[in-house]
Amino acid sequence: MDKKAINLKEKFAKFSEHWSPRVIAEMNDYQFKLAKFKNEFIWHNHQDTDEVFLVVQGSMSIEFEDGIVDLSEGEMFVVPKGVKHKPFAKEECHVLLVEPRGVVNTGDSGGELTAENDVWV
Amino acid sequence: MDKKAINLKEKFAKFSEHWSPRVIAEMNDYQFKLAKFKNEFIWHNHQDTDEVFLVVQGSMSIEFEDGIVDLSEGEMFVVPKGVKHKPFAKEECHVLLVEPRGVVNTGDSGGELTAENDVWV
Repeated sequence: MDKKAINLKEKFAKFSEHWSPRVIAEMNDYQFKLAKFKNEFIWHNHQDTDEVFLVVQGSMSIEFEDGIVDLSEGEMFVVPKGVKHKPFAKEECHVLLVEPRGVVNTGDSGGELTAENDVWV
Repeated sequence: MDKKAINLKEKFAKFSEHWSPRVIAEMNDYQFKLAKFKNEFIWHNHQDTDEVFLVVQGSMSIEFEDGIVDLSEGEMFVVPKGVKHKPFAKEECHVLLVEPRGVVNTGDSGGELTAENDVWV
């Protein structure tokens, strides 16, 4: 067991790409990932799992078919499985994601914003 | 689906007890819990699951049989399943815990610090 704390800010400093989640830890079959959001992502959903967004720095929003959730630093939201959503951020936002190992960022939608999975930082 | 962000600071303001985790969200079979740590907890382990500690405010430590991990604000650590540990905090520390639904705070050790489970805030 590695006896070292995982410092979120230090990890965020190690990459700059937007919409490209980096794994920082695993708990059982789940992964904790950091991502930098800026501008608009695509509409997608994850058929098999809920997804947690926790804002570490900045602010972002998640658009749903029937509304929008705004998230500021220190706020989190659980997107239920199968629910279509589109994250966006006017300014760069630093986000902690929690989801099962193997989840692809674009869910069932694919496309050019699909990031390589299971990339650690 | 409730379209409201979960604000960690607002949730922490709603309880004052130490070592008494409060559930703020569920993702699949997992729960996100807030807890206030102060002074020493007891030695215990969770035979069936890893456990995540993420420090939201303050600082804390986790003692293991072969070392100590110090955690400051913005730092996290995953305690592997079955590993004996004892959290402690000299000053009050606000912590986000992530673990499967049903996990009891004192694990296999029981005792008077065992908190009621599945209490939401």
